Amino acid sequence: MTPLFARVTVAGVGLVGGSLAVAARAAGLVGEVIGYGRGEANLRLARERGLVDRVAREPAAAVAGADLIVLAVPVGASTALAEVFRPHARPGAILTDVGSVKAGVVEALEARWPERGLVVGAHPIAGGEVSGAGAARADLFRGRRCILTPTPATDREALARVRALWEGVGAVVEEMPAALHDEILARVSHLPHLAAYALVAAFGETRVAGRRVLDYAGSGYRDTTRIAASRPELWRDIALANRAALRGALVEFRAALDRLEGLVVAGDGDALEAAFAAAAALRRRLGGEQ
Amino acid sequence: MTPLFARVTVAGVGLVGGSLAVAARAAGLVGEVIGYGRGEANLRLARERGLVDRVAREPAAAVAGADLIVLAVPVGASTALAEVFRPHARPGAILTDVGSVKAGVVEALEARWPERGLVVGAHPIAGGEVSGAGAARADLFRGRRCILTPTPATDREALARVRALWEGVGAVVEEMPAALHDEILARVSHLPHLAAYALVAAFGETRVAGRRVLDYAGSGYRDTTRIAASRPELWRDIALANRAALRGALVEFRAALDRLEGLVVAGDGDALEAAFAAAAALRRRLGGEQ
Repeated sequence: MTPLFARVTVAGVGLVGGSLAVAARAAGLVGEVIGYGRGEANLRLARERGLVDRVAREPAAAVAGADLIVLAVPVGASTALAEVFRPHARPGAILTDVGSVKAGVVEALEARWPERGLVVGAHPIAGGEVSGAGAARADLFRGRRCILTPTPATDREALARVRALWEGVGAVVEEMPAALHDEILARVSHLPHLAAYALVAAFGETRVAGRRVLDYAGSGYRDTTRIAASRPELWRDIALANRAALRGALVEFRAALDRLEGLVVAGDGDALEAAFAAAAALRRRLGGEQ
Repeated sequence: MTPLFARVTVAGVGLVGGSLAVAARAAGLVGEVIGYGRGEANLRLARERGLVDRVAREPAAAVAGADLIVLAVPVGASTALAEVFRPHARPGAILTDVGSVKAGVVEALEARWPERGLVVGAHPIAGGEVSGAGAARADLFRGRRCILTPTPATDREALARVRALWEGVGAVVEEMPAALHDEILARVSHLPHLAAYALVAAFGETRVAGRRVLDYAGSGYRDTTRIAASRPELWRDIALANRAALRGALVEFRAALDRLEGLVVAGDGDALEAAFAAAAALRRRLGGEQ
């Protein structure tokens, strides 16, 4: 069977890029995967773990002959990387990414790629606070959503092939406008990250009567702040790239916090319990309580 | 060997009470454990699972002859329950609790118990969003902290025996004033719960362009909001009982959130990355990233 893509370049062989590479290889979707990156140790690990067929540290060697180039780098680095790759990409090469922010990014990539129709924005909702080639695994995307954000310019065949890649590694693919994606993710991902960082920033070094409060943290605090261990540069880029939607989400979050505080201050136990119960019911519907 | 306590009454055979009961029995620390509660199904389960020796649904039968009475009920219910038990308790019976708020609670219990010196406030830092006798387990407290909050009135021998009980089930016991406990827990537990409830309250029913944003939540949102699935009445009581310290923690949390937002709005990537990196380093020191 002819693979979906004969040669794929994955730029950034970390958790997401490395997992896509190894999953696509395992599923027979790709002829050859070339890993590109700046970190020598990580690239070596990617090769040792069999995530990629070979690695390249020079842009020209990395993308030569590739029919798909995947940008799996922090959102703030993808535009510059597209420019670096552009002179070396073969005509007809599809450019895609895995970034957590889409609107500005896809627009910037379209403006820089030889054929704007061959840019397909993608965001697999999978990942976590672990990172690097060592954390990559072939089943990372199984059953997870992957959002594609085509624009009016997007070539239908390019879109269909990128969709087939994600479906081939087990993802549930959905298409929506980039701006809509960013509004949704601001609420279920970007703002929660900011809140987790703030919980650690607020209390991480607090002492009360000489005692470090973090020494008394239980599993609740650990759960709530787990994503604050994520890579700082990734989340710096995401927060900056999606700042408008993030601020909107912050307004909503503060309003919810203010309302709960108001009930606490008023000593309104009934309303407080009702508010907590409503949240608990919503949270339980989401699953993964344990 | 004579057990530490000949007869112990555990009022509220849920996650914490049930775990203490079964752990104490397993360690041979108690002669007999009587489970008391209002929920018939939960009591039956407690007996079926062997958490307690027998159960009682009447206060007199529950505490008759007990040398230790453990209040393992929501913070807001413990004072009234102490009053219910008082006429039936034998002279010399020690009263303890497991509540997450200590200052006002211990004071109220001391005022109601025949001998105030026999009240020993305790708080094992273990638990979670699961609840009920079905979730109880003998190793819940192993390696976890348990904070005792003696007052100037506390009888030294009563304190020593309650300490021995918690050490006997594997907890790392520490003593501190109740007010200090409450300031610490407001920051590492109560405020994070409020933030988690607020994250769900803010976005739990949000739709953007007809799409329910929670359908796009990944593992980060699940982690961050896990404790919002906790029992509403427990957290209502805790928030109300510790409202002063909780408000102080809210001020600090909002300041941290405001600072991060300021950096996002200013587009100050360097300072934002530094702030995220500092939080990530603190969080990683805490462990349990995965």
